[in-house]
Amino acid sequence: MKKLALIAAGLLLAGSAFAQQALFGPAGVESPVINEDGTVTFRYRAPKAVRVTLSGDFLPVQKVKMGDREFEMQAPVDLKEGQNGVWEYTTDFKVAPEMYTYTFSVDGNSVIDPNNVFVNRDVATVSSVLLVPQEGARSDLYAIHRVPHGTVSKVWYPSATAGFDRRMTVYTPAGYEKNTKTRYPVLYVLHGIGGDEDAWVTQGRATQILDNLIARGQAKPMIVVFTNGNISQEAAPLENSMNYTRPTMSLPQTMEGTFESAFPEVVKFIDANYRTIAKKQSRAICGLSMGGFHTLYITLNNPDMFNYSGMFSAAIGTGSEERAAHKEIYADMDAKLATYFSKKPALLWIGIGNSDFLIQANNDFRKKLDAAGYPYEYMETDGGHIWRNWRIYLTEFVPKLFK
Amino acid sequence: MKKLALIAAGLLLAGSAFAQQALFGPAGVESPVINEDGTVTFRYRAPKAVRVTLSGDFLPVQKVKMGDREFEMQAPVDLKEGQNGVWEYTTDFKVAPEMYTYTFSVDGNSVIDPNNVFVNRDVATVSSVLLVPQEGARSDLYAIHRVPHGTVSKVWYPSATAGFDRRMTVYTPAGYEKNTKTRYPVLYVLHGIGGDEDAWVTQGRATQILDNLIARGQAKPMIVVFTNGNISQEAAPLENSMNYTRPTMSLPQTMEGTFESAFPEVVKFIDANYRTIAKKQSRAICGLSMGGFHTLYITLNNPDMFNYSGMFSAAIGTGSEERAAHKEIYADMDAKLATYFSKKPALLWIGIGNSDFLIQANNDFRKKLDAAGYPYEYMETDGGHIWRNWRIYLTEFVPKLFK
Repeated sequence: MKKLALIAAGLLLAGSAFAQQALFGPAGVESPVINEDGTVTFRYRAPKAVRVTLSGDFLPVQKVKMGDREFEMQAPVDLKEGQNGVWEYTTDFKVAPEMYTYTFSVDGNSVIDPNNVFVNRDVATVSSVLLVPQEGARSDLYAIHRVPHGTVSKVWYPSATAGFDRRMTVYTPAGYEKNTKTRYPVLYVLHGIGGDEDAWVTQGRATQILDNLIARGQAKPMIVVFTNGNISQEAAPLENSMNYTRPTMSLPQTMEGTFESAFPEVVKFIDANYRTIAKKQSRAICGLSMGGFHTLYITLNNPDMFNYSGMFSAAIGTGSEERAAHKEIYADMDAKLATYFSKKPALLWIGIGNSDFLIQANNDFRKKLDAAGYPYEYMETDGGHIWRNWRIYLTEFVPKLFK
Repeated sequence: MKKLALIAAGLLLAGSAFAQQALFGPAGVESPVINEDGTVTFRYRAPKAVRVTLSGDFLPVQKVKMGDREFEMQAPVDLKEGQNGVWEYTTDFKVAPEMYTYTFSVDGNSVIDPNNVFVNRDVATVSSVLLVPQEGARSDLYAIHRVPHGTVSKVWYPSATAGFDRRMTVYTPAGYEKNTKTRYPVLYVLHGIGGDEDAWVTQGRATQILDNLIARGQAKPMIVVFTNGNISQEAAPLENSMNYTRPTMSLPQTMEGTFESAFPEVVKFIDANYRTIAKKQSRAICGLSMGGFHTLYITLNNPDMFNYSGMFSAAIGTGSEERAAHKEIYADMDAKLATYFSKKPALLWIGIGNSDFLIQANNDFRKKLDAAGYPYEYMETDGGHIWRNWRIYLTEFVPKLFK
């Protein structure tokens, strides 16, 4: 490999240090390392740094005071400087099988781990990923295995409502291309505020979950459609013709009814372009946070469209319904619930974390369902408004579909 | 939007500061800003920092001494601290239309711009992206426009050579799904050492280039296939079942003939699964750096397969041929060149930067072609072994195909 090393040196040295293809970061530091005893070691090279800390959602929850409020949070931990300016931290506990994200803070500046190629983008935030899979553990569903893989496509559909083409992600299960006579049920999966059509595939590991559940025989082969819920936008950053420098909470047409009222055009496009089973019995929808809110209202306004609906940490009860442009979407909840349940949907599924700030609103909604005797399934997990929970909910919801 | 602001506040405050969905970075700082006079302003908030610099491939080239060697490089520039700890730098020149990448260095630690949602991953390196499009400029091809968009799919194919399924990216042009009787020519596009099947789509903006050239009538509608040239790997990081913590130069089976000898199985898979015109006249191949090397040898070893071949900054003459596992792939260059040219291929295209460290090897190769009177087209551009050049070469090569 001597000559290859020469090429590498050439690539790294030749001409401009920056403009050359940035091949690799500084070599020789291994991070993260899952140790044999189940602990994990993190390293970061920073010879001039005064303090290096690690934030990650695998760290123990502690009570932390911020001003006059106390929060339960996973407080950062300090790395210790060792030889050659390499800082290091090893957990004093086994890190449970899961998919985590983490960043370092170097003298106050947040950085990803340059020695870890697993990087996730969530809008403008980039984090390093630590995946600890274990046979039999749920997180094993998040890993890639040597099972048949579906195809994941970025597809543009014409939105009459928006007046331009919009991008979605479509998963077709393994075998879709070969089995040209087979028709498939469809699951629509919606993201949260600030997300886009990439979010469930990157942070949510949805296509790995689908591949693995289908390969195990725990889910039916199905088409899965990941929409972009920001109807005023065409697509994720860098795939957008608009001057989209930074998403803000004031993105127009968010949670005011336009996306929900336009949803049938998405279903129509999918039914026209894929081999779907185009009827209620073979359609499901679910979403997280804003997407759970979307799911509820799309379901109620189209009671003949979806047989299975999943609300994951749904952002209901936020008051946005009152100031909506399309008030009709949010109006007459009681009557719409009555119509919806009179048509005997196969499943309304609700999941939320016990420390999610939306749990009260979800409890209120469940009380309304209980009072009317409407059936639903409910799952409460530890933790808050986090991707760990949304991945869990997807692994729970998908096996219940199209049975 | 008051209630939406409350949701946002809720999302940001609720429970754990880290484990909650990281929605947005610190607000109120705009960066980068393309000013009306064509200059660009960059900002970074770092109240405690001592020094903040900016590196980017739009900065002017300077001579810089490193040890006893002098390099021409785009040296970092200093930001100045202003109010509220916001550091700022405005170029003293118009930034020409192009796609650039940049990072900040905060007291020696490289960070991306948290206020810019445009982020590119290149293996383990993450950079912020500045795209300056301008009507009529080449960089306008790199931007998303409201033109018909092709579909971009991540597809797994069974590799008999590797013994497992491997991932590729497949672009089908706009209209492919509707025009079910139409068959299309195919272009295969290969990445460099350290890249993967995502590289040409993220750093290379290849699907935008294709969409725009086709919409302008400057290129034929075609299927484009982006392979993963690391035959010992299944896929890009996070899509790989192997314990793939970090790519190194010693990835097994790199530039030793296995990928090249296995390439016909890729062509066979595409011809079997897409509506291709499955003959030499309608097949093209090109690649950058290692991918240019692959392109040369795949072409020469399969003289009836490709009518158009493009070598972009090809990593030829590195000596890796001598220690190859599959020496036959690299053997008998002169005889293979004679056979190849005797079959009158439509185009051999060679492009390289005038300060690329591989220019001597490419000049030597061209001398060999010249001496034998073999025809080829050649383009020499400014700069080195960089993505800017590879995007340029793709925009030059694609319009010449399948005419």
